[in-house]
Amino acid sequence: MGHGRSQKNSWSRRLSVQAPVDLAAIDTGGTPGVLDKDAAAEIFDASSRTLSKLQEQLFADSLYGGRNSVLIVLQGMDTSGKGGVVKRVAGAVDPQGIRYHAFKKPTEEELAHHYLWRVERELPKPGQIGIFDRSHYEDLLVPRVHETITSEQLTERYAEIDAFEKGLVDGGTTVIKAFLHLGEAEQKNRLLRRLERSDKHWKFNPGDVDDRTLWPLFQDAYEVVLSTTSTAHAPWHVVPADHKWYSALAVQQLLVEALQGLELSWPEPDYDVDEQRRRLLAT
Amino acid sequence: MGHGRSQKNSWSRRLSVQAPVDLAAIDTGGTPGVLDKDAAAEIFDASSRTLSKLQEQLFADSLYGGRNSVLIVLQGMDTSGKGGVVKRVAGAVDPQGIRYHAFKKPTEEELAHHYLWRVERELPKPGQIGIFDRSHYEDLLVPRVHETITSEQLTERYAEIDAFEKGLVDGGTTVIKAFLHLGEAEQKNRLLRRLERSDKHWKFNPGDVDDRTLWPLFQDAYEVVLSTTSTAHAPWHVVPADHKWYSALAVQQLLVEALQGLELSWPEPDYDVDEQRRRLLAT
Repeated sequence: MGHGRSQKNSWSRRLSVQAPVDLAAIDTGGTPGVLDKDAAAEIFDASSRTLSKLQEQLFADSLYGGRNSVLIVLQGMDTSGKGGVVKRVAGAVDPQGIRYHAFKKPTEEELAHHYLWRVERELPKPGQIGIFDRSHYEDLLVPRVHETITSEQLTERYAEIDAFEKGLVDGGTTVIKAFLHLGEAEQKNRLLRRLERSDKHWKFNPGDVDDRTLWPLFQDAYEVVLSTTSTAHAPWHVVPADHKWYSALAVQQLLVEALQGLELSWPEPDYDVDEQRRRLLAT
Repeated sequence: MGHGRSQKNSWSRRLSVQAPVDLAAIDTGGTPGVLDKDAAAEIFDASSRTLSKLQEQLFADSLYGGRNSVLIVLQGMDTSGKGGVVKRVAGAVDPQGIRYHAFKKPTEEELAHHYLWRVERELPKPGQIGIFDRSHYEDLLVPRVHETITSEQLTERYAEIDAFEKGLVDGGTTVIKAFLHLGEAEQKNRLLRRLERSDKHWKFNPGDVDDRTLWPLFQDAYEVVLSTTSTAHAPWHVVPADHKWYSALAVQQLLVEALQGLELSWPEPDYDVDEQRRRLLAT
C-alpha cells in the first residue's frame, strides 16, 4: 500500500464527524474514498496483507514491553453489518491477536454492576486488537430512546464515558469508533431477506421490527450521542453501510491507519543472535 | 465436499492413536490421506466454505437452546506450528464463533489455584469452537520432564483429566485432541529461520534451545501421556507436522468431521414467518 505522509489518516479525516452531526445529510449508499466494488476489493486484499503484518508487529511489540493496543467500537442499527465487518476485517488477521466481544442485552449480573463494569472486562490487552460489537454506547442510546433515564443521568454518563475513553487512550489504546450508517429502506430489504431464507431465519428476531418502528428516535439519539462524544482523542466515524463491501473496507482502512500511526517496527532481540545460533547448531 | 456415510470420521480414524503410542514409528514428514500440497490446497479451500457454514449452524443451534460446542486441544513442541494451524483453520470462520486461548507458563495467580482452574475459565460456551494452544496437558508433560511431580501425583492427574474431559463430552462438547508431531531436524530448521530473519527474532526464545536439549525426554513424556489419555470419548490424534500445509489440513478435517458428526440443521424459527413479514412490510 505505502501511504505517504500526506495521505496519513485520510480515511479517518474523510469519515470522522464533529458536532452537530446531521445523519440525514450523509448518504447511506455513498462510497467516499473509493470508486466502486472492484477498486474496493483490490485495496481490501492488499491491505489485508498489510494488516496481518501490522498486527504481528503490534503483538511482537507487546512481548517486548510495548503497551499499545487498538479498540474498534462498532455501533449501528440491526442488520447494519457489524458482524460481517468483523468477519471480513478480522478474518485476515491472526485470531490470536484479536479480542472480540459482542455486547448483548445486559444480564442480571451485569445490571447489578456499573454499566462500564462489563466493558472494562473485555478491553484489549497490550498487543491486541479489541473489537466491540455494540458497546457502552448502548447505555446512552437505549435508555434515551426508551426514556428510562433522566437528562442529568445522561449528562453524567457522557462525562464518565469521555473520562473512560481518555483513560484508555492515555494508557496506550487507540480507540476507533465507527457508526455503520444504514438506510431505512436497506434495513427493510435485509430483514425481508432473513425471512425469505430458511438458513437465515435464526438471525431474525421479532424485536427487530419493534426497534424499526423506533427508527427516527434512534437516528435522533445517534445524532446527539455522536455529536456529544466525538472527541479529539476518540472521534466518531460515520461509515455509509448500504454497501457491505464499502463498510468493511472503511473499517479496515481506519484500522490500518491507526496501526500505521503507531509507527511500530520489529523489536530488537534481547538476546545475542550469533550466540543463540551457535548454541542451536550444537544441538 | 460431500462426505458419504462410509467416509465419516475417516481423518479421525486415520490419525487417532491408542496405547502403546510409538512416536518414532510415525513419520513426521508423512502426509496420510492426501497426495501432495496442491491436492491439500484444493480440499482445504472447499472445506473452508463447509466449515464456515457448519460453524454458523453450531452458533444458530445454540441460540435455539442447543448445548453443543467443540474444543480443539493443540499440543506440540516449540515451532510445531500450533499458531499457524489456528490462523489457517480459524481464519475461514467467523471470529465471533471462535474462542481461542494460548496457555503460557502459569502466572502466580494461576499457580495459586488447581491446575484445571485456568482451563475451566477458557472453555467454549454452547455454539462456540474453542481452541486451546497448549492446555492442561502441559501440567502432565512439563512436571514429568522436569521431575517435579511424584508418580502418585501424576496418576491422580491422569484420573482428574479423564474425568474432566468426560464431563465436557457429557455436557455437549466434542473434544478434538491433536499432537503436532514435528521432527527434531525440522525444528532446528525452523528455529534457525527465526534467527535469520529480523522480522522473526521476536518469536525466538533462548529457552527454546534449552527445551530442545530435552527433546528425547519430551518425546518419551508425550508417548506416555498420549497412550494414557487417548480415550474413546476424547482420542488423541498424532498429526505429522513437518509440512505446515498438511497439519493445517488435518486439523481442519478433524474439525469438519466433528461438526458434521453433530448432524446440525438450521433451527426452525420460533416465530410465525408470514406474520413477521406482514409486520415488517407495514413499516
